[in-house]
Amino acid sequence: MKFRFPVFLLLFSLISSFVLDAKPRARDLGVPFEGNPGPLNAITDVAGLAVGHTTIIRGEGKLRVGEGPVRTGVTAILPLGKKTLNIPVFAGIHVLNGNGEMTGAAWVEESGFLEGPVMITNTHSVGAVHEATIAWRVSQDGPDATGYWWSLPVVAETWDGYLNDINGFHVKKEHVYSALENAKGGPVAEGNVGGGTGMICYEFKGGIGTASRLLKKSQGGYTVGVLIQANFGRREELLVAGVPVGREIMENLTKYRPNNDTLPPDDGSAIVVIATDAPLLPHQLKRLARRATHGLARTGTITGNGSGDIFIAFSTATPKFKLNGDVGPAKFLPNDQLDPLFAATVYATEEAVINALIAAQTMIGRDEHKATALPHDRLKQILQKYRRLTH
Amino acid sequence: MKFRFPVFLLLFSLISSFVLDAKPRARDLGVPFEGNPGPLNAITDVAGLAVGHTTIIRGEGKLRVGEGPVRTGVTAILPLGKKTLNIPVFAGIHVLNGNGEMTGAAWVEESGFLEGPVMITNTHSVGAVHEATIAWRVSQDGPDATGYWWSLPVVAETWDGYLNDINGFHVKKEHVYSALENAKGGPVAEGNVGGGTGMICYEFKGGIGTASRLLKKSQGGYTVGVLIQANFGRREELLVAGVPVGREIMENLTKYRPNNDTLPPDDGSAIVVIATDAPLLPHQLKRLARRATHGLARTGTITGNGSGDIFIAFSTATPKFKLNGDVGPAKFLPNDQLDPLFAATVYATEEAVINALIAAQTMIGRDEHKATALPHDRLKQILQKYRRLTH
Amino acid sequence: MKFRFPVFLLLFSLISSFVLDAKPRARDLGVPFEGNPGPLNAITDVAGLAVGHTTIIRGEGKLRVGEGPVRTGVTAILPLGKKTLNIPVFAGIHVLNGNGEMTGAAWVEESGFLEGPVMITNTHSVGAVHEATIAWRVSQDGPDATGYWWSLPVVAETWDGYLNDINGFHVKKEHVYSALENAKGGPVAEGNVGGGTGMICYEFKGGIGTASRLLKKSQGGYTVGVLIQANFGRREELLVAGVPVGREIMENLTKYRPNNDTLPPDDGSAIVVIATDAPLLPHQLKRLARRATHGLARTGTITGNGSGDIFIAFSTATPKFKLNGDVGPAKFLPNDQLDPLFAATVYATEEAVINALIAAQTMIGRDEHKATALPHDRLKQILQKYRRLTH
Amino acid sequence: MKFRFPVFLLLFSLISSFVLDAKPRARDLGVPFEGNPGPLNAITDVAGLAVGHTTIIRGEGKLRVGEGPVRTGVTAILPLGKKTLNIPVFAGIHVLNGNGEMTGAAWVEESGFLEGPVMITNTHSVGAVHEATIAWRVSQDGPDATGYWWSLPVVAETWDGYLNDINGFHVKKEHVYSALENAKGGPVAEGNVGGGTGMICYEFKGGIGTASRLLKKSQGGYTVGVLIQANFGRREELLVAGVPVGREIMENLTKYRPNNDTLPPDDGSAIVVIATDAPLLPHQLKRLARRATHGLARTGTITGNGSGDIFIAFSTATPKFKLNGDVGPAKFLPNDQLDPLFAATVYATEEAVINALIAAQTMIGRDEHKATALPHDRLKQILQKYRRLTH
Repeated sequence: MKFRFPVFLLLFSLISSFVLDAKPRARDLGVPFEGNPGPLNAITDVAGLAVGHTTIIRGEGKLRVGEGPVRTGVTAILPLGKKTLNIPVFAGIHVLNGNGEMTGAAWVEESGFLEGPVMITNTHSVGAVHEATIAWRVSQDGPDATGYWWSLPVVAETWDGYLNDINGFHVKKEHVYSALENAKGGPVAEGNVGGGTGMICYEFKGGIGTASRLLKKSQGGYTVGVLIQANFGRREELLVAGVPVGREIMENLTKYRPNNDTLPPDDGSAIVVIATDAPLLPHQLKRLARRATHGLARTGTITGNGSGDIFIAFSTATPKFKLNGDVGPAKFLPNDQLDPLFAATVYATEEAVINALIAAQTMIGRDEHKATALPHDRLKQILQKYRRLTH
Repeated sequence: MKFRFPVFLLLFSLISSFVLDAKPRARDLGVPFEGNPGPLNAITDVAGLAVGHTTIIRGEGKLRVGEGPVRTGVTAILPLGKKTLNIPVFAGIHVLNGNGEMTGAAWVEESGFLEGPVMITNTHSVGAVHEATIAWRVSQDGPDATGYWWSLPVVAETWDGYLNDINGFHVKKEHVYSALENAKGGPVAEGNVGGGTGMICYEFKGGIGTASRLLKKSQGGYTVGVLIQANFGRREELLVAGVPVGREIMENLTKYRPNNDTLPPDDGSAIVVIATDAPLLPHQLKRLARRATHGLARTGTITGNGSGDIFIAFSTATPKFKLNGDVGPAKFLPNDQLDPLFAATVYATEEAVINALIAAQTMIGRDEHKATALPHDRLKQILQKYRRLTH
Repeated sequence: MKFRFPVFLLLFSLISSFVLDAKPRARDLGVPFEGNPGPLNAITDVAGLAVGHTTIIRGEGKLRVGEGPVRTGVTAILPLGKKTLNIPVFAGIHVLNGNGEMTGAAWVEESGFLEGPVMITNTHSVGAVHEATIAWRVSQDGPDATGYWWSLPVVAETWDGYLNDINGFHVKKEHVYSALENAKGGPVAEGNVGGGTGMICYEFKGGIGTASRLLKKSQGGYTVGVLIQANFGRREELLVAGVPVGREIMENLTKYRPNNDTLPPDDGSAIVVIATDAPLLPHQLKRLARRATHGLARTGTITGNGSGDIFIAFSTATPKFKLNGDVGPAKFLPNDQLDPLFAATVYATEEAVINALIAAQTMIGRDEHKATALPHDRLKQILQKYRRLTH
Repeated sequence: MKFRFPVFLLLFSLISSFVLDAKPRARDLGVPFEGNPGPLNAITDVAGLAVGHTTIIRGEGKLRVGEGPVRTGVTAILPLGKKTLNIPVFAGIHVLNGNGEMTGAAWVEESGFLEGPVMITNTHSVGAVHEATIAWRVSQDGPDATGYWWSLPVVAETWDGYLNDINGFHVKKEHVYSALENAKGGPVAEGNVGGGTGMICYEFKGGIGTASRLLKKSQGGYTVGVLIQANFGRREELLVAGVPVGREIMENLTKYRPNNDTLPPDDGSAIVVIATDAPLLPHQLKRLARRATHGLARTGTITGNGSGDIFIAFSTATPKFKLNGDVGPAKFLPNDQLDPLFAATVYATEEAVINALIAAQTMIGRDEHKATALPHDRLKQILQKYRRLTH
């Protein structure tokens, strides 16, 4: 089966990578973070990893289920780029709050391997992405080395029904194929793209964010990259660099507040993907995944009941499967050398959230629902006020 | 959205329920089991529970991906029948071996509730069933009491690619709707039906099996019902009532054996659904779910690496949600009254496996692949030889 | 068996409760926190709960194993005070990083109940406290209602070997009995007391801290109380109200830094006990326990490999066991009413850590090892500088 | 600190190893099992592994708490014999039913390593064994390579209060030291020895049992050894080689049956230790541990509420720690080569249970409580009747 890549998506992709350079990120605005980022400050600082977004934005006005407006998409993360077709990587998962989905989690947990990509989309498109991911793998030549043909794909989601016609099931096979086919290294588009297109974070416009950390040579020189689909949090809770930014910008809220006594439900979610080139075993990657919690917590969330916060970490330094089904010996770090990797995960997750907020642009979706971007100037003023602006 | 039920499925349903009475089950053949079954010896002995099967059998001969032959289907278990639309039940999950999928598991684990049905199908149709289950719920009037519209449906699977054109993705929306719409109480069709249509168990034809246990009045008089989609095991391993039946019938094997030294891989799976009307809390239901392991083990399996064995238990005695979102107080049994429920789960699971083997009929699927039914007469002879036949 | 309470412990107890009133807590110094505390801002705001500390401080100078110096102790938390003898409470546990011990965890997880107190001590005294806790329960008249006589007691620990002769095993039966016998409601001593006596936190003197939150009437009016034994963190990491206080006070460090490149290992730990009078089921309490992570993360820790961070949450609103072994129905909150309890757990945990740091006083232990108290005036100056001081 | 080994224990040890040769094991009686055992059919078939028992039998007649009668002990399993002092091994744990204790489990789960021995004793002696195990390690020269000095030792238990003065806390430091000092390879004493001294299994006298499996060369030639402290089950449930042996020997029961309707509570437990020389990673060892369930289930138990069934598996092929804290690369088997190891675990666990029953001898304990040995001749007759006797 040959896949034909739609021209409009190609154009979108070109345009967005062009625009990318011009958009400031959190550090550019003077937000302070811990640790040293890699060259791209993105998950793609992990060599060989590829990210693909398909963004679907179509229609305006009143919701007509099945017709739109559409504000959604799908993001594909291929740990080893094209080699992901045949080579699994060690992986570990942590569920912080399970009001969400990450299919394939049982087999990652059992086998210690992620066999294929991590796909992220909206809640009601999990099925479409699940089927299309298997179909795409089958469309490539022959089964993979493990013989499973990605039969238990990892598909995660957050809910975009405030802006998107989520019951219209608008993510189709071609969108999934496109995200997989066009995944690449280099800078990663953030904000209203891919699976993050219609997401909301701390009642600002949210979406995709990424960041990375490069460890010192004395710590092994490893890279940790994080990508988040950020769709969680209440305005009052937002902290940026420890500063109560949310409380200072209490206008343009997305959530209805019945009275002053009660905060609205936190029914968002956060899918966090953590990649590293450090040689780690599955149970060690699970420990990395668990540290995404700290990163989220540093941005203020208490992780509400309605949140689906599921984190996956993998290592691209996993020994490669050979054709005969054997695996080489696995290098791995002693547990007492993990602290710098834990720190990198915490700090890169925190920065990825703020990057998502900085990159996302105001969006009007179904029924004129509006999610407003975090105003950059206001953010800078507030950080200045609390003596936390770096420049 | 109005769903129109295909006539051929209706006919199939009528015919199969008619035929049902004539088919012997394990007890009818004289296989001994522990404990006392309910009136139907089926999961539907739990009052109010409904089961629906859609069976898709089409085509013969050589595999042409997308065209068939098709030997698959989907099974829906609605804990509270029609009331499942709006009322969740307490539930717990256990993963014995995670080479499989049960979507929605994270939210069951987190919330303690199963909100909607349990759907079972083939591995590559998880996506289609996932999307269709959400779509069907949306097509009913209004969101459910919890406000989630079944957004994280529970969809489980086992692999039927030996007989079925699994990469053809033949389970469609209408098949899912049919299973949901036609779910009912009463006798449950077993063997080559629903999600179990193309399954293989101990290298005999497998599929759907069910059984139940009715506790004594002094134990509370509760019912435990089990339904299994059985697709696991190597012939040599099969035990029936502790008797090594598999070793005595080593012909018509479905798996290729490269030499005498090596058993073939056990790449099957078992999805087990355990229902009870005993008032139990989520963590207690998790304990029930864990006991399905014993039931499988009593039939001989060692649960191979390739097996996806995921079990879900729920209680129909869960307090009902009210319109204002409140819940009543939850009655529950003290832990030290659980042993009879544990025993019921173990024994009903064991019997459900054997019932699946007894009910399943020889099937020829793609590329003339054949799965042979467990021969009833041979089984009786062997049990006789080992003095275990009850009559 | 009659227990005789040592006079010196009684005196210590009297003196410390006297001194208690005079000591400022974090709020008194002007540290801002989220949420509204209960009257005592302590775990004992949960009605009926009792806390007992035994503090063992003895000897100075060079370490002679078995002789001292001794800087250790034991803390007992009885969920229902004296009624804890016979009545278990629903409970849930979360392990953030398992380089630590909480005995009894398997039975809490399995049964959903905490049967007895939570005991906290030093790492090497877990055995002594385990045996003594069983022995004390046996010494009271008759087995408990569950018939288990507290046979699987919950004993947790953190490591105090930097200040204490930990290999001297100085916690004895009488110290455990004393903590159990003298447990009471009212204000809770913080800092260098009980199990927290020899602990170090962010390389300042650490120990016991506590805090509470009182929910609004519209949220149910429930109380959440937290007690922490705080023994974790590196100086650079410390945040107070989001302010990088640690980096501003880089003197008097307890950890050796081989060079500028490398942070010392984080080999501390945090045991967090969360009590509430909200009616919650075991799986819901597990969710509360998981939120202690956010509270710790807000104080800056990345939770190092060497840290043993284990959290237990319980509800005093658990239905009471009756003599015949029955339990009443369990009231419980719908999941979508849990957010205020999650927030309370996060914020009270954060405040409990800072309270521990504020209360702890400079201590010199074995081999003249010194842990310096967080200087109150410096803290205030730094908060002032970052515009975060409340008064 | 120098440990002096009591002479009476030395004598006991000599005598028991002498007697050992004369005692028949399950296979000697003609009980059929699956798979091929190693030369000793014991956990010590895993090269380098050492087992030490201390058995404490003292006094008769009426229970006087603290004075006896004593029917208890402690068993030590050192994965690498003397090298266990400094070298950890990869390990994984599974909790089948958590009405029991295995201290140290959180760190095994987190780190992937078992650092030190596995100790097994009675429920109320966990504390004494915990403290003594740390103390013994401290008494050896210098900290271990990981620097933790076995601070979180693995101590497991089952309950022997029917025969033993369990509230007398009779396991003392010297008993623990003796088990550790005298641990050795070679044949392993079974039945009423070590931690298993006062245990009861299927209402027969139980205790320690062991067995092993040797894989074929084509499967890697690895060894799996199992040791169980067996203290579980109701008489009616007992299956031997699938034959309902329990129902055929319903005399000399240890449990009181209030009436015919109700089985007595199953308040026993099973600690299972699984050792292998196959190179496996921690998450793979967890999978092995989970298969002990199948082994127990094959002997008939449904694992009652009161049972504490905790299993630990470790690999002696773990890469060795070097002095600088580094570890070599870890060889490990692909997941699809694990089935023979799973089967070995299942079958060796089953055989270890039956070996414990065969080896244990009738014991009279406190208050003339009596646990009767499984009569060998009756067993053979029953197996003969069901055509399952091998010779």
